[in-house]
Amino acid sequence: MASWVFRLLPKNIRFLATSSENQRAEGCLRHHEAYGYFLPIQTRWQDNDQYGHVNNVVYYSYFDTIINHYLIRYCGLKTGLLTSPMVGFMVTNQCTFHTPVGFPQVPVAALAVEKVGHSSVHYRLALFPPKPTQEPPSVDHHDLSDGFFFGHPKLGQFDALACTTGSSVHVFVNPATSKPTGLPEDFRRGLLRLMRPVSM
Amino acid sequence: MASWVFRLLPKNIRFLATSSENQRAEGCLRHHEAYGYFLPIQTRWQDNDQYGHVNNVVYYSYFDTIINHYLIRYCGLKTGLLTSPMVGFMVTNQCTFHTPVGFPQVPVAALAVEKVGHSSVHYRLALFPPKPTQEPPSVDHHDLSDGFFFGHPKLGQFDALACTTGSSVHVFVNPATSKPTGLPEDFRRGLLRLMRPVSM
Amino acid sequence: MASWVFRLLPKNIRFLATSSENQRAEGCLRHHEAYGYFLPIQTRWQDNDQYGHVNNVVYYSYFDTIINHYLIRYCGLKTGLLTSPMVGFMVTNQCTFHTPVGFPQVPVAALAVEKVGHSSVHYRLALFPPKPTQEPPSVDHHDLSDGFFFGHPKLGQFDALACTTGSSVHVFVNPATSKPTGLPEDFRRGLLRLMRPVSM
Amino acid sequence: MASWVFRLLPKNIRFLATSSENQRAEGCLRHHEAYGYFLPIQTRWQDNDQYGHVNNVVYYSYFDTIINHYLIRYCGLKTGLLTSPMVGFMVTNQCTFHTPVGFPQVPVAALAVEKVGHSSVHYRLALFPPKPTQEPPSVDHHDLSDGFFFGHPKLGQFDALACTTGSSVHVFVNPATSKPTGLPEDFRRGLLRLMRPVSM
Repeated sequence: MASWVFRLLPKNIRFLATSSENQRAEGCLRHHEAYGYFLPIQTRWQDNDQYGHVNNVVYYSYFDTIINHYLIRYCGLKTGLLTSPMVGFMVTNQCTFHTPVGFPQVPVAALAVEKVGHSSVHYRLALFPPKPTQEPPSVDHHDLSDGFFFGHPKLGQFDALACTTGSSVHVFVNPATSKPTGLPEDFRRGLLRLMRPVSM
Repeated sequence: MASWVFRLLPKNIRFLATSSENQRAEGCLRHHEAYGYFLPIQTRWQDNDQYGHVNNVVYYSYFDTIINHYLIRYCGLKTGLLTSPMVGFMVTNQCTFHTPVGFPQVPVAALAVEKVGHSSVHYRLALFPPKPTQEPPSVDHHDLSDGFFFGHPKLGQFDALACTTGSSVHVFVNPATSKPTGLPEDFRRGLLRLMRPVSM
Repeated sequence: MASWVFRLLPKNIRFLATSSENQRAEGCLRHHEAYGYFLPIQTRWQDNDQYGHVNNVVYYSYFDTIINHYLIRYCGLKTGLLTSPMVGFMVTNQCTFHTPVGFPQVPVAALAVEKVGHSSVHYRLALFPPKPTQEPPSVDHHDLSDGFFFGHPKLGQFDALACTTGSSVHVFVNPATSKPTGLPEDFRRGLLRLMRPVSM
Repeated sequence: MASWVFRLLPKNIRFLATSSENQRAEGCLRHHEAYGYFLPIQTRWQDNDQYGHVNNVVYYSYFDTIINHYLIRYCGLKTGLLTSPMVGFMVTNQCTFHTPVGFPQVPVAALAVEKVGHSSVHYRLALFPPKPTQEPPSVDHHDLSDGFFFGHPKLGQFDALACTTGSSVHVFVNPATSKPTGLPEDFRRGLLRLMRPVSM
């Protein structure tokens, strides 16, 4: 499937993908090892569009969810507008859709941090479908509230190849001034935990 | 809180609620015993609206999700438009919002069947927030793919009082003719399993 | 169609509808005269669900939109959480779905005010599809930013019979205390403009 | 603003943007001339997220909407799954968010076609906010059902600089086989009408 998608990518992305090195990089982004944190995603009936699969728009809300979930649970982000000293604005994001998923499947979202700047964070994202076996994945204790990290045996229940890959960039600003704001130390520490090399 | 909401209900619903019997009925609908099937709901960042709580619209998609999940998982519903002999159309639905929930909480949706007609099904619905303790609810093995039934100890992790109650009516039609279609026996059997008296 | 829907309504709503007077009332709620304010609604590709029609959940977002649009445009509501002295919380809402609409149709939403309390507002809502003629409705100057009021000739471009009817109740609270707050005079005046008797 | 966003773009996109030629290209994509077709977008209350602006996810549904609207209105696409000989699957898409918009603003979406392949179409997309003047944009006759083309005086009511730019790729497949299918001649003709050079 990968090569089929590659042939159809837009000009600027194809440009990146022409070298075999880049093709290998894209291939690596579809594997578990490229990600540090995982959160099962509960699809909804409304996620499916007229063609019976999750609509492309909805994947972005899955990725928004794993990002904000990690920031709140592991980095101490406060999201109340009246109480938070900083809010994250999305600067850019993108997805490549390899194969479809649909309600009522339970895929798992995956997150890695590519770079932590003064006020910005670059994320790498993926979605892995459940393994196409009889048994649906066993979503375990605390999975929805805690997620799990790379190396957890639960990952074995999901496909080894991502159905969707993506990336995005957050910039954190002071809600009062809308100016970029430096990231606090413990926030930064939580993020650095998800920096993972993409080995080729 | 209940009485406060009651004072503010619209005319036609207040009408139903004037007798003390009706108030008791509404009260009962906020308890676990009124429901047979339960499915944890993963909230999403996008569910919160400008006021920082799950937007009222989104509760309807939670309830659509538990209904369709149960119909597919336990009643054999096929939802592919090209392959399904019947599709469910919503005829009416309503919600009453008692207290708010918000991302990243993991509430549990609850479903009961009030009546199974020739081609229609009347549902009773509720959402219970997690108990406001240190520990978030432990969403257990298979919870997202199987849900669980009344009597399961896991229910103890959720509040005893629903934050939202609702009801809805599905009519099943033949997608080719759009005419109501009789419900198959095993489909009906799966539904009858969720009929529960509301004791007052 | 109306009588078909009536036969399938849930027990508590059927109870209201058994008298012929109530049936007439429900019939009246499907006509333009029951409403004071109208806003064309642009459907989106994503609104259609797997069955090719606007998903029931999405109608609630249409109705949320006409309500908040009217409150901001004609009643002076400020919705910024950091700046607003009051925010509206939905207490209850309901819809009855008579006939479907779908993307890319442009229906018109309709709003009336049933009652203005100390801190609450009871709304009546409907959606009218475009007339099934060759020509799609001409959505005119300023229609999306100003809407239009009952009596406007543009209404002639939409069906005389609502495809969906609904109702909802807002309670306005102080965002700092979450306590109900009295409605300001000019806010109340804007709302009273939409009080319309339902003649039978 | 442009340069601020550029500094924060992810590695792979920055790579494209390092040459001054690429920066000029990105700048050009924020102007009306880069687009052929325009559709006003009605924002919804639910579009705003907790931070009071349209959530990044929702922009993708605006862009999905202008694309499908154009394909149905001007290229003869049939979207009924039971009746359509081909359906469009999104292969990849991306957005860059320069400045925010929010409900109840009425921005205008913009569409151009970059390339028409055997079974794929590459789109260029943008969103232009209304001019920050007293008067909101006059959304004219038929605007929601017909949109309008480059050169129309109505464009003068919208900002000269896009608040969001994006791109996406559709692949059209046979719904029965899920194999890519050649685009019919009149479909292709409708698309070629929107091919526009990006002059630098």
